Amino acid sequence: MSVTPLEISANARPSTFEVEAINEHGVSVPTAIAGEHPLTLYLDKRELVTLMTLGAAPEQLALGYLRNQRLVADLADLAAVQVDWETDSVAITSRILRATGKTMWESQPGSAELDSRLARRTITSGCGQGSMFGDLMETLDQVVLPAAPRLSEEVLFTVMERMRTHESIYRVAGAVHGCALCSNAGDDRGEILRFVEDVGRHNAVDAIAGWMWLEQVDGADKIFYTTGRLTSEMVIKAAQMGIPFLVSRSGLTQMGYEIARKVGMTMIGRCQGRHYLLFTGKDRFVAPSANLLA
Amino acid sequence: MSVTPLEISANARPSTFEVEAINEHGVSVPTAIAGEHPLTLYLDKRELVTLMTLGAAPEQLALGYLRNQRLVADLADLAAVQVDWETDSVAITSRILRATGKTMWESQPGSAELDSRLARRTITSGCGQGSMFGDLMETLDQVVLPAAPRLSEEVLFTVMERMRTHESIYRVAGAVHGCALCSNAGDDRGEILRFVEDVGRHNAVDAIAGWMWLEQVDGADKIFYTTGRLTSEMVIKAAQMGIPFLVSRSGLTQMGYEIARKVGMTMIGRCQGRHYLLFTGKDRFVAPSANLLA
Repeated sequence: MSVTPLEISANARPSTFEVEAINEHGVSVPTAIAGEHPLTLYLDKRELVTLMTLGAAPEQLALGYLRNQRLVADLADLAAVQVDWETDSVAITSRILRATGKTMWESQPGSAELDSRLARRTITSGCGQGSMFGDLMETLDQVVLPAAPRLSEEVLFTVMERMRTHESIYRVAGAVHGCALCSNAGDDRGEILRFVEDVGRHNAVDAIAGWMWLEQVDGADKIFYTTGRLTSEMVIKAAQMGIPFLVSRSGLTQMGYEIARKVGMTMIGRCQGRHYLLFTGKDRFVAPSANLLA
Repeated sequence: MSVTPLEISANARPSTFEVEAINEHGVSVPTAIAGEHPLTLYLDKRELVTLMTLGAAPEQLALGYLRNQRLVADLADLAAVQVDWETDSVAITSRILRATGKTMWESQPGSAELDSRLARRTITSGCGQGSMFGDLMETLDQVVLPAAPRLSEEVLFTVMERMRTHESIYRVAGAVHGCALCSNAGDDRGEILRFVEDVGRHNAVDAIAGWMWLEQVDGADKIFYTTGRLTSEMVIKAAQMGIPFLVSRSGLTQMGYEIARKVGMTMIGRCQGRHYLLFTGKDRFVAPSANLLA
């Protein structure tokens, strides 16, 4: 039986806009600023959420949101993802709706559970956390990160150097966070596989999750890099994506630290130049200095 | 008639914790990290939201959240704000509940409207925006910022210098954003009146709003400073607080820019050292260079 492929739009928006600003010398300076747009997600005509986004990867953002909120279990359940900037919306259509004319909310045996998940989602928000707290903390027990993978300091330095020199909206306009999925296997260890920037950290990580879902990429032999802080939300999302290595240019929070310990993630923060701090999951990290001291 | 004062707890949490990290030399380094805790808000026993917070000003955060979400119109409607870290919750009790035994949800003539506001709140989340989009964009038309106040470059430089040298969690542990309300009147122009840091930008600004509400501070002769980016959410919240001057160390987004223009806010970004960029509301800003060029 042939399967109809997922219909998916490719409606990225321009990422920067130029405005005039006046500097301390009284001189008018053309200045690039980052785009920011509301994007309302509809799943089978039901309004889920409005995300403020740069709009660089809106389809992947929508898919990653659905996945990370565990609202759709299998990509094969979806027929179409259509972003429309005329209405600032993305319509996600299930195969059930296409086939039967009934929405997944009406059709699915588990729709009561879906409703309850949506209800619980809605009682949580807030920036450190996005909208996922109540639901996801409970499911962390199910996360098992692979113990075998190793990250070498050499590959970490490659990741840091690639990120340092990568073209970015941030360099042009500031006001965005970047996330990257990097390889930790084969000849391209440390290379960037996918890089997404957004005005919200959680959007950038959701868009990477959406891309991994679409491309059927496994997280076990990957490294997740973020320019942003390692809060509970970032650690939970990386764990959900099955990625054992989480690397950041910034610092971390206590809850990020505790969750990383709990799920056994290798977490490295404050990566700048040739400096870094290894916080958790030390067994997976291989550095010459560790051998010297051992 | 005497009015019973608001009962309010003072349960700030320690802001930093020390963990051991291993640096690039293989040396174990005691490292301060920022606290991050869930705090669930209950208004008359109804669960509203779970915020991830540093916990430095939890009562003011809860009050500012209620105010900025427009869930409570008047501080005099509230009898108590009690933060309890045993249960990671804050219980806000209305005077109606105290007096009648009925919650404000049951008692208020407008409770249907409140329910609807809560429902609309819940369909929006996302970090660039917190949880306020649907509701607040509509009410921006009602915001009128005072035209008369002026900010001089000298006072701007004072604010920047005060922020540069202010004691902060950020300096010790990173991973937080800071917001400050500064004076723009009298002998203490440019001085910091209130400074709050949190793991989420929107929490820090909500806590400032809560403090202003408690202390009955008017925004018209104030300057709002943030270390974070000037996204739509930040601009909307500053406008709600009636503050005509918004200053940031970071950049801005297109939507932040457009909203600032729409409400006539004076917005200055990229403040570093003696540098800045004036983006909107130029008429309120007074600089020697502008006079030279005029």
